[in-house]
Order: sequence, then structure tokens, then C-alpha cells
Amino acid sequence: MGLSRRKIDEYFMRRALSLALRGTGRTSPNPMVGCVVVRDGRVLGEGFHSCCGEDHAERAALGKTADARGADIYVNLEPCSHFGRTPPCAPLIVERGVSRAVVGMTDPDVRVSGRGLDILRSAGIAVETGILGEECRWINRGFIRRVTLGRPWVTVKGAVSLDGGMALESGESRWITGPDARAAAHRLRSEHDAVLVGAGTVAADDPELTVRHTCGDSPMRIVLDSRLSIPPGAKIFAPGTTVFTSEEAGRERRTAAAAAGMDVVTVPSGSFGLSLSHALSVLAARGVNSLLVEGGPSVIASFFREGLVDGVALFLSPRILGKNRPFSGPLVFASMDETVRITGASVKQVGNDFLLEGVPECSPAL
Amino acid sequence: MGLSRRKIDEYFMRRALSLALRGTGRTSPNPMVGCVVVRDGRVLGEGFHSCCGEDHAERAALGKTADARGADIYVNLEPCSHFGRTPPCAPLIVERGVSRAVVGMTDPDVRVSGRGLDILRSAGIAVETGILGEECRWINRGFIRRVTLGRPWVTVKGAVSLDGGMALESGESRWITGPDARAAAHRLRSEHDAVLVGAGTVAADDPELTVRHTCGDSPMRIVLDSRLSIPPGAKIFAPGTTVFTSEEAGRERRTAAAAAGMDVVTVPSGSFGLSLSHALSVLAARGVNSLLVEGGPSVIASFFREGLVDGVALFLSPRILGKNRPFSGPLVFASMDETVRITGASVKQVGNDFLLEGVPECSPAL
Repeated sequence: MGLSRRKIDEYFMRRALSLALRGTGRTSPNPMVGCVVVRDGRVLGEGFHSCCGEDHAERAALGKTADARGADIYVNLEPCSHFGRTPPCAPLIVERGVSRAVVGMTDPDVRVSGRGLDILRSAGIAVETGILGEECRWINRGFIRRVTLGRPWVTVKGAVSLDGGMALESGESRWITGPDARAAAHRLRSEHDAVLVGAGTVAADDPELTVRHTCGDSPMRIVLDSRLSIPPGAKIFAPGTTVFTSEEAGRERRTAAAAAGMDVVTVPSGSFGLSLSHALSVLAARGVNSLLVEGGPSVIASFFREGLVDGVALFLSPRILGKNRPFSGPLVFASMDETVRITGASVKQVGNDFLLEGVPECSPAL
Repeated sequence: MGLSRRKIDEYFMRRALSLALRGTGRTSPNPMVGCVVVRDGRVLGEGFHSCCGEDHAERAALGKTADARGADIYVNLEPCSHFGRTPPCAPLIVERGVSRAVVGMTDPDVRVSGRGLDILRSAGIAVETGILGEECRWINRGFIRRVTLGRPWVTVKGAVSLDGGMALESGESRWITGPDARAAAHRLRSEHDAVLVGAGTVAADDPELTVRHTCGDSPMRIVLDSRLSIPPGAKIFAPGTTVFTSEEAGRERRTAAAAAGMDVVTVPSGSFGLSLSHALSVLAARGVNSLLVEGGPSVIASFFREGLVDGVALFLSPRILGKNRPFSGPLVFASMDETVRITGASVKQVGNDFLLEGVPECSPAL
């Protein structure tokens, strides 16, 4: 008995997803896309979008396929219909004589959604959509957020004790978690387009916010600093760092930061300090699909207050700190119903620590 | 190729341990013991100590064995040599003609340790000890604590949010965890000889401390209440409840509690309220091998301060409470080195929550 068509489609879509993930951390502002060309159950060619500016996955896969006539093509995202930095993929698929296209999800940009599929259908190609749709949306959650909501996918990362502390009352925080968890945290950084802290974390820890202890590219570095108080000696007071600040900061400080090569962006104030939604839309406009918030309690609380958290990644150390600086900081809820629930939470062991990941209920559906 | 003798011994010892665990929650003050009688790889008879006053495991297993001559006997704890409520097991094993005894651990009571084995050896029985010794000590950790240190094994249980809260600042705590975690907490109760809370928990939650939502016996109920302030209307203000209190409570209150059938025990004060080590030795004298501390933050902190915690069982809810009543309450540590580290921590999913279990470093080796 052979496998059903559906199972076969899922099998090759899973392969396309695996390929897509090889672009992790490098494709933004583009999505991660993988593509497999198959005939009679045999892979003729496969490829993925490796980096913004490089070939799209479909072009990469078809480039490796000698003869695509009559083949099935699997791709986790609708092939593009328009000229960008590279020519569009849908016409190429038609041109190469593919007879069936299996597509994980349509383009999330409502302005072009379905156009790629229309091109395929008009050319007589059989089109199947929604295969492993949930997984396809999940791997491109950042791209979807940016295209549909004009902001990146925001993940709050923290290292906390069992009693919820990020540091002792004295401020001592080294180390709550062990070396394996710290390496995993660096891997998390490498998978994000940008990493953000507040001025308080800069003052307390003077972080580099680069990727070490693991391979991978360092993300864009961002500081929230309404008064632009971070000292010129700080490690992230360096070219390429983006600082969101307010009018409050004064021209002199802004000029000094800009002279150091930093990207100084003045945003309006919100109800709790800088307007985070404003800052996030600036990041989206710069092509940031995913943002890792590594701030301290007040930055984390601000993101939760504005309902702008899509994911949490908490490294839980099996340790009790006693009186501490709780990671949920200044958040206050009047009743249990108002508290933040994390859905679909999973826990995995990382060295002697544990990583809990999940999506807060406030995060809009993908 | 056959299994090595060692592997065979571990196999049947594991069977003995499984049998032993069938006495969970019912054998105290006795240990949990399982026994398997084997000849040529075939089980001739098996049994376990089901309940204090009933047959010991060896007697139960040999009672099911028609002919034990030349057989191997597996038992997780050294057979007893002295008359208790039942006649001693070591002579019975000799009498039945067993030729080899595989024993997980010697009797932890140094006053009698090895005597049972001596009886066997003197009769020419080959004796092997230490097979799965660690597992054998673990299942009887409560018995070992009581016999060697004169106190029960103390497990601190709590239901906490990711930010370490047992309740909102308002005191609201229903429900941090879901129904599956609550059922698992009742199972935990049924596995302990006694369950303890402080007067604060009685005032806040008026708990019954009985086993519901799962099968199993209810443990002995204990309240720490130095001033004997729990109201006569409280659910645990009932016959059978043990109250540890101090001279501070006054004769009138003590008389009232005693008149209600409660067991009122006056203990001296320690550095942080009632002397817990004193209370624990009273419990040990009454045959309590295992104690589940279900108190609030101050009771939990007292046990940690006195270094009297052997295990933690924290139900972690994937929820952020914001400003809360942290479970580690009034504990304060000056540096990271002084904080409480949990060793051998494991996490398992229970419904939508997680159960973290482990042993604090302060817990003496078994």
C-alpha cells in the first residue's frame, strides 16, 4: 500500500521547511523559504533562500533541476509575482514546465496575496495550498508580523530563578544560569534580527549583545534610552547600534551618539516611557522581522503592558534567590484573570537549567 | 549470549522495588520493601510490605513460594533480625533453604545494621549487597532520614507562577495552576505521611489537607501555629490534627484545641518562630517518615533557613502574575553563592503546567 498523496505532500513540505530554516537569521527582511522539485517521488532539485539579495528558493531549486517538466514543486510560501532585487518566481515556475505546485501558505501581504498562485493557475498548473500551513506560518512568524502588523515578532528572553528573580537585591546576577543555558541564549540571539535592552541593563551589565559561545551572525543592537544616559564607554556605544531616545535627551547627547556612529532615533513618549509601538514600527521599516528583548524588569514590563510580546524564552535555573529583582518587575494586575497566560508552553532541559518557551495570550493569531 | 549475573540481579531488584512502591504512603513508620524469590530465572513467589502491622515483604513472598530450597531471594532492604510486631525475616529465609540473597541496602539503623546479613551468612547463604543501592535508598529516603537523623524527609510543595508568585498581592491565588496539577498535588499528599501548613495558610485558604481528586489515604495533618490563632471554624480544627504551638499560646487556647480532639504539642521557639527541628523530631518519634510542607512563604522560608528541606516539588504555571507574594518570601541571601541550588532537577508536564522536582544542596546525603 503506498502513502496517500497528502502524506507525500507533507513529507516534501517538511523537507522544504528544513531547507528554509537554513536561512535562519540571514534572510530578513525577506521570509525564510525552501523549495523542493520532485517527480515520481524522486527529488530533482532543491534550494533555499540563503540570504537577502540572493536567489529565492524556487530559483535556487530550479537551478539545480535539469528538467522540471511535469514535476511537482513544493514551497513553504507562495512564489512571488513581482520584480524585487531578483526577478519573480511564479513566471519562472511556469516557464520550466512544472505541472503541480504545493504551497504552504499564501503571501501574508494582502496587497499581493494570491497573485503568484494566479500566475501558476492561469498557466494550467495544479495548485495545492495550506499543506503544513501552521508550521509554515510559524517559521515565518516574524515576516508575517512585519508585513501584516508593521512590527517585528517580539520575544522576551530572560534568565530567572525558580522564585522569578533576574538578580539578587544587591544587583548580583552572575550567574543565575549555567554555561549551556548561556550558550543557548547566544544561539537565540543569532536567530533574531535585532536584540534590545534598556539603559538600566547597559548600566548594570555593560553587555556586548553580540553572538559568542556559538556560531551565527550578531543581530542589530538596540537600546531604549529616553534620556540617552548610556556612557560613551559602554560596549554598545558603538557604530551600528540603534538608540531610541526622546526629546528629553538633549541635542548634545544625541550629537555625541551620532558622532560615534550610532543610529539615534527620536520617538515620542508613550504611557510608560518611550512609545514602544513607534519604535517597533521604525524597526519594521528597517526590515527587522524578529526582535529579542533582553532587557531588565522595567523594559520587559513595558512590552507586556503595551501587549507587544509574541513569545517568551525563559531560562529557568533550579535555584532559589530569596529576595530578588523579579523579572516581571513593575507589572501589577488586579485579578488572576488579568495576569499574563503563556499558551502552548514547552520546557526543555539545557544543561542544569530549563528553557520554557511559549506565546502569551495577548499575541495576535498568525 | 545470556545476560550477565549483574544484569539479572538488577532486573529482579527492579521488580522488588516496583513491589515495594505498592506500599507507598501506608508502611510508615516501616520502610517500603518488596521481595522476589527466583530459581533458574523463574519467579517462584513475590510480595511486599503492604501496611504497617502486616507481613514483611520476605514473609509475604516466601508465603507464596511452595519450595524455596536453592532459590535466590531479592529484597531492597536488609532482612530484619529482631522481633517487632512480626517475627524476624532473616531466620525465616534460612529456614526455607534459600541459597543466595541479593540485598539492595543494609539497615540504615547503625544499631542493627548488618545483623540480618550476618544471620544469612552464618547459615551459609551467599549474600550480595548494594544492587541498585541508590534507587533502594531513594525509595526509602523518608525511613532513612527518620532512622539516621531523627526527622522525616521534608518536601516543600508549592504552586508558583513563572515570576515565582504563590498569590497576587491582593492574596488571590485561585487558581495559579490547572486541574491536572491540583490532582497531582493531591497524589503527592497521599504519598506522604504528614502534611504541614502554617497559621497564615489556614487563615487565607482554610484548607482541608485531605486527599481528593485522586485515590489514596489522607496524611496526618499538621499546623504550625505559635499563638494557636487558627479559628475553631477552620476545617483542620478537628480531631487528629496536630498543632505545634508555643507557651505564647496561653492555656485557654490549648485547652480548647485539645478539647476539640486536636493533638496540641508545645515546642520551644527557634531563631525564626517555632523550633522546626524540635517539631520534626516529635514527628519522627511518632513514626512520620515523610512530611509535605504546603505552607505559604513564611513557613517555606523557615524550613530553608534551618536547612531542613530535602526536596522541592514546584508546580510551575506558565503565567506571569506581576507584583505578587513570592514563594521564597522573606528569604534573603547576600550573594549568589549563598542561594539555594536544587540538584538533579527534573521537569515534567502536568496538564498545562509543569512539575519541577529536585533536592536542595543542603539536604544531607542518603
